[in-house]
Amino acid sequence: MSIDSLPVPEARRDDALDRFVAVIPAGGVGTRLWPLSRAAAPKFLHDLTGSGSTLIRATYDRLSPLAKGRFLVVTGQAHRAAVCRQIPELDSADLVLESEPKDSAAAIGLAAAILHRRNPATIMGSFAADQVISPDDVFQAAVLEAIHTAASGDRGKIVTIGIQPTHPSTGFGYIRGGQELDVDGAPSAREVVEFVEKPSLEVAEKYLASGEYLWNAGMFVAPVALMLDHLAANQPALHAGLTEIAAAWDTPQRDEVAARVWPGLPKIAIDYAVAEPAAAAGDVAVVPGAFRWDDVGDFAAIGRLNSAREGDAVTVMGEGARVFTEDASGIVVSDTKRVIALIGIEDVVIVDTPDALLVTTKEHAQRVKGAVDALKASGETDVL
Amino acid sequence: MSIDSLPVPEARRDDALDRFVAVIPAGGVGTRLWPLSRAAAPKFLHDLTGSGSTLIRATYDRLSPLAKGRFLVVTGQAHRAAVCRQIPELDSADLVLESEPKDSAAAIGLAAAILHRRNPATIMGSFAADQVISPDDVFQAAVLEAIHTAASGDRGKIVTIGIQPTHPSTGFGYIRGGQELDVDGAPSAREVVEFVEKPSLEVAEKYLASGEYLWNAGMFVAPVALMLDHLAANQPALHAGLTEIAAAWDTPQRDEVAARVWPGLPKIAIDYAVAEPAAAAGDVAVVPGAFRWDDVGDFAAIGRLNSAREGDAVTVMGEGARVFTEDASGIVVSDTKRVIALIGIEDVVIVDTPDALLVTTKEHAQRVKGAVDALKASGETDVL
Repeated sequence: MSIDSLPVPEARRDDALDRFVAVIPAGGVGTRLWPLSRAAAPKFLHDLTGSGSTLIRATYDRLSPLAKGRFLVVTGQAHRAAVCRQIPELDSADLVLESEPKDSAAAIGLAAAILHRRNPATIMGSFAADQVISPDDVFQAAVLEAIHTAASGDRGKIVTIGIQPTHPSTGFGYIRGGQELDVDGAPSAREVVEFVEKPSLEVAEKYLASGEYLWNAGMFVAPVALMLDHLAANQPALHAGLTEIAAAWDTPQRDEVAARVWPGLPKIAIDYAVAEPAAAAGDVAVVPGAFRWDDVGDFAAIGRLNSAREGDAVTVMGEGARVFTEDASGIVVSDTKRVIALIGIEDVVIVDTPDALLVTTKEHAQRVKGAVDALKASGETDVL
Repeated sequence: MSIDSLPVPEARRDDALDRFVAVIPAGGVGTRLWPLSRAAAPKFLHDLTGSGSTLIRATYDRLSPLAKGRFLVVTGQAHRAAVCRQIPELDSADLVLESEPKDSAAAIGLAAAILHRRNPATIMGSFAADQVISPDDVFQAAVLEAIHTAASGDRGKIVTIGIQPTHPSTGFGYIRGGQELDVDGAPSAREVVEFVEKPSLEVAEKYLASGEYLWNAGMFVAPVALMLDHLAANQPALHAGLTEIAAAWDTPQRDEVAARVWPGLPKIAIDYAVAEPAAAAGDVAVVPGAFRWDDVGDFAAIGRLNSAREGDAVTVMGEGARVFTEDASGIVVSDTKRVIALIGIEDVVIVDTPDALLVTTKEHAQRVKGAVDALKASGETDVL
């Protein structure tokens, strides 16, 4: 189903979709994917699905039919060149470069404030650069519903896209859906009763059984004005700082103001700064997404997303990988041209990079973050 | 106990020990230790015990108090420089360089023939360059008994040094001992009833229980004349070729004759060419060795020979290794300076070299040879 064939009333579609700008926060290092993903080469710059596209490029391509060139990518200054190589379509006005990471409320809030200066009627949609989603058209249909919902009513809504849970995950926060909303062009939009933190397994199983809960994938679509209203109400200092930077952004004073203000801004997640208080105020809606979604949280996910070749129990990732296996299963990510021989070992995870090697199991893949913390603590920062 | 304090009658000692020359065949690649050990850097050129000495250097040092500078090292032409770096004491007359490998009968037979030309009364002792033995003085006492036994009687004896078995190994051949011999200076020497091939586990258990069997470690001491007599009787073509090369060895014709004759020599193990028929003829004796012995047959042996640091379940080998472990056990051999992180994996074997990586388990360490064969078959010979 292409966007052009979506059943959207023409008038509303022109109005809301034309105000849409896709924001792509490209921040997290993806520590659980070390040593492949690291400060100098974070997760979003890797092709983790064997598709031939890096995650950030795939994110851009997935949003392009809706955003039609209207993008804002928020990333670290160190990643400017790599991001521009991945998305040569971006011009300098489409990039927000952070001098240091300030968590999601500052990153997304600055994007909202800049977009608001440029056009106060903007509807922003924020989609992390390092998630894997398919198929694209199901995703796009959900985003389109979210755009219409975001544009509905007097002030609009902050609209999350919730993921239909497939298992009782304890690794994600959940969104509890409520009454259906009656929005033209968004038949599946509902109100949000509450956001809940990562639950215990027991609680997650109840959530799954109830059918009322969706995974919070951190995707949302909202009028920038409404975003900023909630930010002002809940984080006035952050809001003031971001407003000051945004006012200078498209002027020769950008660098001076950003250098002065940004370092002092509070670090807080957008969930606490905006989404949860906005939900409590009744300003948040949810559109369920029926697409496949994976945040590629660890190397076990790499195994899920890259099935082994026919008749082979080992998933191999990496161009020109030279992997020989005998009675082995698991995942090999090869970022070198070295020969790798696996013999008689099950469910192993091997990540081979020029300066660091990880050997673990699928079961322990989540613990990679702990190893990175240990390396940091012992001063082995050259490989982080 | 130093050699000087060994309880040996002075007269006999002068006679037999002064005729002793230590031969060190440095041949095998040590395929089961790939990718650490390989054609260009075979097992004997590695320090596999963390002692600071390569195996060949340790072999030389262990024999020095007996051989007192009288050595003959038989190795491939490709290893000349590396061997001379390890044993700078060698001069060119102490080196026999093979243009191509011809198995142990040709290598040891040529050493015997060359030594016989130089001095027909020579007693040679052949000790592979890639075994780990301790303590040295117990080994030296056994070799000294073997030297006296080799020198006894009219023609002397071919004397193997048999290893007291510590478990029912199916990886070694066995020597069945017989009647005690009555040799001055060799109280533990016995006749050899037979050599037997690598047994099944059931048979090996019987051997162990009987107390009559020793492991055949391929170590022997013998008058070169007796060695050559048996070689002539059992492998006349090989004997003729070796005699021809030996006649030219210390002359300007060495290279021409060796280049013409060596490539056509039959490939056969010394066990079949000499030891077994000599045993059948009643010419073989055995001296049991009570020293610890390990042929470092696979990476599990590396684990045995290099105990983990206190409080750490992972044995790490390699200078400057940067290994971080969490809930892991096993062996890491690091031939690079890469950071290696092991998380939640048991009894693993990791061998990290600049161009090849092996990941297996202690249990499957013996199967490394199969992987090398597979790599060879698929043409990945650059890493072999």
